[in-house]
Amino acid sequence: MSFVKEVSKWILAGIDGVIESIEDDDINMMIEAILGAKDGKILLIGTGRSGFVGRAFALRLMHLGFNVYVSGETITPALSPEDLVMVLSGSGTTTTVVAQAEVAKKIGSKVVAVTSHPDSPLAKCADDIVVVKGRTKVDQIRDYEGRQIRGEYDNAPLGTMFELSVMVFLDSVIAELMQKLGIHEIDLRRRHANTE
Amino acid sequence: MSFVKEVSKWILAGIDGVIESIEDDDINMMIEAILGAKDGKILLIGTGRSGFVGRAFALRLMHLGFNVYVSGETITPALSPEDLVMVLSGSGTTTTVVAQAEVAKKIGSKVVAVTSHPDSPLAKCADDIVVVKGRTKVDQIRDYEGRQIRGEYDNAPLGTMFELSVMVFLDSVIAELMQKLGIHEIDLRRRHANTE
Amino acid sequence: MSFVKEVSKWILAGIDGVIESIEDDDINMMIEAILGAKDGKILLIGTGRSGFVGRAFALRLMHLGFNVYVSGETITPALSPEDLVMVLSGSGTTTTVVAQAEVAKKIGSKVVAVTSHPDSPLAKCADDIVVVKGRTKVDQIRDYEGRQIRGEYDNAPLGTMFELSVMVFLDSVIAELMQKLGIHEIDLRRRHANTE
Amino acid sequence: MSFVKEVSKWILAGIDGVIESIEDDDINMMIEAILGAKDGKILLIGTGRSGFVGRAFALRLMHLGFNVYVSGETITPALSPEDLVMVLSGSGTTTTVVAQAEVAKKIGSKVVAVTSHPDSPLAKCADDIVVVKGRTKVDQIRDYEGRQIRGEYDNAPLGTMFELSVMVFLDSVIAELMQKLGIHEIDLRRRHANTE
Repeated sequence: MSFVKEVSKWILAGIDGVIESIEDDDINMMIEAILGAKDGKILLIGTGRSGFVGRAFALRLMHLGFNVYVSGETITPALSPEDLVMVLSGSGTTTTVVAQAEVAKKIGSKVVAVTSHPDSPLAKCADDIVVVKGRTKVDQIRDYEGRQIRGEYDNAPLGTMFELSVMVFLDSVIAELMQKLGIHEIDLRRRHANTE
Repeated sequence: MSFVKEVSKWILAGIDGVIESIEDDDINMMIEAILGAKDGKILLIGTGRSGFVGRAFALRLMHLGFNVYVSGETITPALSPEDLVMVLSGSGTTTTVVAQAEVAKKIGSKVVAVTSHPDSPLAKCADDIVVVKGRTKVDQIRDYEGRQIRGEYDNAPLGTMFELSVMVFLDSVIAELMQKLGIHEIDLRRRHANTE
Repeated sequence: MSFVKEVSKWILAGIDGVIESIEDDDINMMIEAILGAKDGKILLIGTGRSGFVGRAFALRLMHLGFNVYVSGETITPALSPEDLVMVLSGSGTTTTVVAQAEVAKKIGSKVVAVTSHPDSPLAKCADDIVVVKGRTKVDQIRDYEGRQIRGEYDNAPLGTMFELSVMVFLDSVIAELMQKLGIHEIDLRRRHANTE
Repeated sequence: MSFVKEVSKWILAGIDGVIESIEDDDINMMIEAILGAKDGKILLIGTGRSGFVGRAFALRLMHLGFNVYVSGETITPALSPEDLVMVLSGSGTTTTVVAQAEVAKKIGSKVVAVTSHPDSPLAKCADDIVVVKGRTKVDQIRDYEGRQIRGEYDNAPLGTMFELSVMVFLDSVIAELMQKLGIHEIDLRRRHANTE
């Protein structure tokens, strides 16, 4: 087997273990929080690769009919207490991300953090957290933009397992949301079968 | 087991099957193409969720020292024949993506397409292709922006399996590139072990 | 006087002439169209520097309480017939921009084009146009992304006068919208006086 | 004359006054700094509307052959001491912007700030500043993302005069750079004449 495929298998086994370890209660809390924001807004916050995972999830939420926004784009509307803020950060320490979460919390929006570190500043600020392991070391230097400028690249590819696990996990959350919202037209099982 | 975790397991099995089915020759070709662009530029092209997967890969390539750009950002430099263009599109039919690939080919840059459809317009235009199954149905309507405006949302979540498989696959390609480039400091195996 | 200041004076005189030449009827039509979209959505479309001018305008519209979106960002919701689409393109020929305008027109959204060329494909597709001179030559090659990749850079800095004139014009439109909407807290005259 | 045109004339007179008041020495310093970065990188930093003005300038610098990047995009390479960082901020207090400037300064890159406030944190951190009046009041709340989330919209349209003045000023700087670099093909005077 080629080295690339071998690595893929390791990664997939790793993701499996990471998702396995997520608390079912956390998953249910997240799904309730999202369904509860059906009449409000959902804001996704994340930087770097976690930001891209957040954007991919935001697109799906939009497809399901949610009123969703992404931090860092031109249009980010004012939050209100009915809104849900979902923050993705493996380390839970990225300065700008934590700062935005704190602002959201002061406004009274519900803040749900997805992070590897339940003791991180982000986790402490959040109303609820979903712990997704996969990031083993909290970076000393916390600011994402600062690390980019300094060339301190996320200790590449540390973070990969967190980002991939969150991406698969959130697409699975989409599947449950579709079921709960009665969006029948796409049968995920059948689609899955089709792709093999 | 919660429904979300059940779906995750289906998805992971699906990704495993998809990556298993990639031709080893295609993988080797892609890795040679990337290594061959060490002194030139690499441009990543993709829209929607494939675009986010491309950006996540672009970040890692930058971390490895490549001179990489992403279509659709402010700064996209002129291509030249020494450059590599990597195009991610499950359907291989997205109008703007195919148009950009054709321009790149006329300039003489090497165009490598990652797509589910070896007979698509994108695949026909590319110098080389990596077939990543996962997208079973080519959309009738081809333009991404047009579909967004019309609210024809990618037949959500069709495409998920392609996007996730490509993301895992490309992170595995990063692992091989690190090995070939002698970037030792991150031992992917150990990192993987740490995250479980 | 330094050369830079001399050029600024030429540019400002040029913008003055360009805005002078805009038809009052076109201005009134645009303002009515925007006010008419108070309960719907407004989508701004543009690429390159015109895209940045559009984003700057979109931010101000959001500040005034409009439900506004920008093409090319993660979240672009489906259009409906009650919505307003504003398209900024000096040449009126940029392929992707015209394509999006045509999709919007088919849906039945109102399409208002801001362009130098009343005979351009964009102008022909639009419901209404605001002619803002400043772009004297229609580019032979029409696709923005294609030109970027080829290094055919907009015949730099051709286009500057269109982009600057539209930016000043649209900020003046904001002033009238503030007046019509009774947004008193910012007195533009006083603010202007303060800045001299 | 329509109200919109009247406002445009005020704005243009205001921009004229603002650019008139820029120190010639500051302009020369900026132009030397840019020309001095011909073999390095130039990074543009700014948020909100100042960010769009920075992006429009970055595009032109790229057209002139500079190796330019924009903060906040996917690809932002590591800085080095030979690089130039240009920061646009009317208030000079935006938290994320100041933080990035400080990181750049520590690395040893040359930091040039364009701001209304020579006593602001940004100005104090910069190696050199270009004072562009137009922003009369420093916002109490300093973080841009925070203000967006809270719906505290920049006291709209406070800031307009700064942003427009900087945009016209920087396009005039482009004209001088073209002259100094011997980029003849576009005669700015003639182009200007054409557009009236």
